[in-house]
Amino acid sequence: MNIKLTIEYDGSHYHGWQLQPNGETIQAALERAISTFLGKTTRIVGSGRTDAGVHAMGQVANFFCDQEIDLFRLQRGINALTPQDICIRNAEVMPDAFDARRSAKRRLYQYRIWNSLWPSPFHRSTAWHIHEPLALPPMRQAMTCLEGEVDFASFQAAGCDAAHAVRHVYRNLLEEEGSLLLYSIEATAFLRHMVRNIIGTLVEVGLLQRTPQSFAALLQARDRTQAGLTAPAHGLFLMEVKY
Amino acid sequence: MNIKLTIEYDGSHYHGWQLQPNGETIQAALERAISTFLGKTTRIVGSGRTDAGVHAMGQVANFFCDQEIDLFRLQRGINALTPQDICIRNAEVMPDAFDARRSAKRRLYQYRIWNSLWPSPFHRSTAWHIHEPLALPPMRQAMTCLEGEVDFASFQAAGCDAAHAVRHVYRNLLEEEGSLLLYSIEATAFLRHMVRNIIGTLVEVGLLQRTPQSFAALLQARDRTQAGLTAPAHGLFLMEVKY
Repeated sequence: MNIKLTIEYDGSHYHGWQLQPNGETIQAALERAISTFLGKTTRIVGSGRTDAGVHAMGQVANFFCDQEIDLFRLQRGINALTPQDICIRNAEVMPDAFDARRSAKRRLYQYRIWNSLWPSPFHRSTAWHIHEPLALPPMRQAMTCLEGEVDFASFQAAGCDAAHAVRHVYRNLLEEEGSLLLYSIEATAFLRHMVRNIIGTLVEVGLLQRTPQSFAALLQARDRTQAGLTAPAHGLFLMEVKY
Repeated sequence: MNIKLTIEYDGSHYHGWQLQPNGETIQAALERAISTFLGKTTRIVGSGRTDAGVHAMGQVANFFCDQEIDLFRLQRGINALTPQDICIRNAEVMPDAFDARRSAKRRLYQYRIWNSLWPSPFHRSTAWHIHEPLALPPMRQAMTCLEGEVDFASFQAAGCDAAHAVRHVYRNLLEEEGSLLLYSIEATAFLRHMVRNIIGTLVEVGLLQRTPQSFAALLQARDRTQAGLTAPAHGLFLMEVKY
């Protein structure tokens, strides 16, 4: 059986998704739980890595299991064996060809900003605190140039080993819920630190340190050194992977 | 100067609002910060206690200060001197007669329930997890008898030293935000554990273990032993104190 898991996690206390020689990761915690439950060492394939501190509402992973298992018992068992900051939201059987990483068609990320003079005790581990007021209209104007087939070399992390930097962005939008700003972006795939680099630069536009025109010019320049800082990991959520 | 503070806190790691001989409290953390900032031992008066683990979005306290102080500097100073799970949202000067406890006219509490088969990594310290689906119509029907001048003896904690149990409830409502249920109640004042006892019993109605009619009869009986369990502290928020 090829089993697809949909996973929610608070990444605050993990060194990211991917197995690491030192430091606990989400993948390691899940593989231990699944291996214990099945009584057999089991490896899982995630849809993609999330960096240390990044959260997920809908990460997806799959694994093969040669026993017939009841999915509800499996889900309950894994949830009982993982810490409370990781939760399996759904488990389902897929055709053998399904691969959480290679079959993924689109990914949806959200970045949260707490835009208020004072920090929030409740959003401090899930949103980036920006205390100066952000101007949303220029941010929204800058964002329009990110949609479609775009070369994101300007927003690629230094160590990113992707063959090229062109990605298709279906939509990106910025919503306001009181002091909380929610930026969403859906694309075929993402480069390393891409969303955090976009946000770091969009925040400069919101602070009127950079114009929407210069944001567009920066994207054209395909030069990482011209972009803004990388926004912190703790505001980022992998919301959904579409197949 | 009589200074009014509006305070937000995540109560997870505190033994409640009120000073305790053993264990850290919100009041103690604030008094230390204010005393350090002013260079003088200072006591504060809160609008009321919150129990261990209860949170606040709008707790109110006041204190007297014989120096002329800049309110913004004061607020920034206290926020720098308290842990990140406590934040002063607002500071203002009030007439000398203002007393955070005695001048309070109404209090608004909210109780959060995470009503989903699986727990939530993001709501686990701010909502009570109930995994069986709750039926909202009978809960809402039961709630109607709580409005107006009501004797809440059935929902009073054993050790409560209030002179009588009659309180005026202006409104109570139950809203749904996805899997999150938000119960709000606004009243002149509250008895010890009153909201948590109401919730513990309303949840029994939502689980169809008790009818709305028996909920009303229980209130009439003025007998704590007939009510449900006390809901856990970590779902409760003091939202606002009105003067």
